[in-house]
Amino acid sequence: MTLKIAVMPGDGIGPEITAQAVKVLEALKTDGLNIEFEHALIGGVAYREKGVPLPEETVALAKASDAVLFGAVGDFSLDTLPRHLRPEQAILGIRKALNLFANFRPAMVYEELADASTLRPEVVAGLDILIVRELTGDIYFGTPRGNRIAEDGPFKGEREAFDTMRYAESEIRRITHVAFQAARKRGGKLCSVDKANVLETTQFWRDIVTEVGTEYTDVALSHMYVDNCAMQLLKNPKQFDVIVTGNLFGDILSDEASMLTGSIGMLPSASLNETNFGLYEPIHGSAPDIAGKDLANPMATVLSAAMMLRYTFGLEAHATRIENAVKAVLATGPRTGDIWRDGKMRTGTAGMGDAIVEALAKQ
Amino acid sequence: MTLKIAVMPGDGIGPEITAQAVKVLEALKTDGLNIEFEHALIGGVAYREKGVPLPEETVALAKASDAVLFGAVGDFSLDTLPRHLRPEQAILGIRKALNLFANFRPAMVYEELADASTLRPEVVAGLDILIVRELTGDIYFGTPRGNRIAEDGPFKGEREAFDTMRYAESEIRRITHVAFQAARKRGGKLCSVDKANVLETTQFWRDIVTEVGTEYTDVALSHMYVDNCAMQLLKNPKQFDVIVTGNLFGDILSDEASMLTGSIGMLPSASLNETNFGLYEPIHGSAPDIAGKDLANPMATVLSAAMMLRYTFGLEAHATRIENAVKAVLATGPRTGDIWRDGKMRTGTAGMGDAIVEALAKQ
Ligand SMILES: CC(C)[C@H](C(=O)O)[C@@H](O)C(=O)O
Ligand SMILES: CC(C)[C@H](C(=O)O)[C@@H](O)C(=O)O
Repeated sequence: MTLKIAVMPGDGIGPEITAQAVKVLEALKTDGLNIEFEHALIGGVAYREKGVPLPEETVALAKASDAVLFGAVGDFSLDTLPRHLRPEQAILGIRKALNLFANFRPAMVYEELADASTLRPEVVAGLDILIVRELTGDIYFGTPRGNRIAEDGPFKGEREAFDTMRYAESEIRRITHVAFQAARKRGGKLCSVDKANVLETTQFWRDIVTEVGTEYTDVALSHMYVDNCAMQLLKNPKQFDVIVTGNLFGDILSDEASMLTGSIGMLPSASLNETNFGLYEPIHGSAPDIAGKDLANPMATVLSAAMMLRYTFGLEAHATRIENAVKAVLATGPRTGDIWRDGKMRTGTAGMGDAIVEALAKQ
Repeated sequence: MTLKIAVMPGDGIGPEITAQAVKVLEALKTDGLNIEFEHALIGGVAYREKGVPLPEETVALAKASDAVLFGAVGDFSLDTLPRHLRPEQAILGIRKALNLFANFRPAMVYEELADASTLRPEVVAGLDILIVRELTGDIYFGTPRGNRIAEDGPFKGEREAFDTMRYAESEIRRITHVAFQAARKRGGKLCSVDKANVLETTQFWRDIVTEVGTEYTDVALSHMYVDNCAMQLLKNPKQFDVIVTGNLFGDILSDEASMLTGSIGMLPSASLNETNFGLYEPIHGSAPDIAGKDLANPMATVLSAAMMLRYTFGLEAHATRIENAVKAVLATGPRTGDIWRDGKMRTGTAGMGDAIVEALAKQ
């Protein structure tokens, strides 16, 4: 089996952190894995070299690969460009082009890092939530959208702007199945988050999720309003196992959940389509302020590579090896500044990558 | 001056807690204030007695009054009713009918209660944020909305549901002015929250807020994406002074912010129109599980009455008297179960109301 991986480092710290994940994957080749890496431009660097944030050849490479290892995009100096040329449009564009509708965002607290959270240790110790966010629908992509002069109503004649929230039945069904199946493999609980008391789209969401739920009687399904969920994540985050929600609410809640852990330099993510093709990326951003300085924590990207082995390639044992190597480094190895503590050795991005490779070798 | 106050207790604990606020306001009559109270039905109780959650006479009474003292609405046993008959529709309806576009939701941590938060005390001690949420626009009220068969696109022929997010220029302008003026009277900082990297409506929001900002050069204006704000509220909530945002994001972020304090039984809110007419309510809900048991904390409702004296009637000194009475009770008086600690006397809803009245008398 040859794993064809497209590497898209992107902007800021993207190149440094993806390089470490590639290094860790390379180290698994001694296990008989055959991995081919091909690199492509995306985000601000793509705009600078090719004039667009998501060049056609980048999409073509992704389509010709089995999975994408993604760094980060975002470059403040390009924020004044027209929206369609800004780096973030690349990530929206590639999700849509590859139909990556299922976004998995785990928020877990490592024992060694429980004190990193701004929450009390007893509230977050042992936290392990999975947020399943729908990623190709909702108000992110709904049409019509734009600016116009209001034609009637109380603001007639004024400038107004608008967007369309929408979900079709099959879009809700497929993400719900994905979430139920994930819950079944974990704690057996699924909480669907909506605003069914106000929004038609999310009342429909709730109805379809409830219908699909009848096929998963082994999973305990609950429903929660998004405002309440934003509170419950603070009040008692350990009440949750898997959360499933739409694109917009998922954007907000998954960032809130990841900050509960206090170490977003540790959190990976996966965005999958129906065929287990996936794009894997750390949940943190491009951090331009520390780019190129060998300061960034590469663990989230390395753990994203582990998710890739598990979800796209079904290589559970190899994924676990990487995860255990990360844990071993957390326990006894050196650390980057974001998770450094008194008594620990300090290292940089590359040093952390090397430490993970060493830990793999010792297993 | 006669203050004409419409009292709308609503469901669950609503009657008990509004009764305490009325008691506290009554106690101020000795100061020469002339207050008239009239009661009206709203929410589940209105549905049961009149067949609709927001009877016409309730809206009429509000319009004939200077301010509304509101308890809470919500009754799980009515959740299976068609949406337009559910208790929560009353709150949406009255906001729209009275044009209450400016929602003030302070999130502050009382010194005496700093240990109630699930966040580390040093992260939240002294926290004092004001969220200004737009309350009559956005996807809450935008049309068209509903269910239909998709007419084109990849889901053609399928059932789909949809809603419209929208803001007109003047809607954004008026809430922005309100927020800048509030910031000017407080810490001089305003953070506008949007998702301008994805949504047209919120790019327009950002443009208008920026334009209005040129009139307030004494206030430091910043912009933040909603997902980042959900994180920053956890990471470092004290970075914020006033936050202004749209109806939907405000719903989510204000609930998150209030939970930071750990004592939502303490948090009041105000919803105002252009003429300072206002509806005042605790931010917590109807809590049907403890209704009628003399267990609920009435302080949020009492503090809402203080906001009423300040914002609608300009009675700053009286507002401060109530707030100081609440602080005095927190310091030395008895407490309801939600904020009770070892070493404190325990009391019920009415006992807490009495304690506040006593503290007023001692000032
Ligand atoms: C960059 C932005 C468009 C993106 C989103 O909103 O989805 C990001 O916040 C994310 O969560 O991946
Ligand atoms: C009850 C509901 C419609 C309401 C809202 O979403 O505005 C509530 O959550 C609030 O924040 O007052």
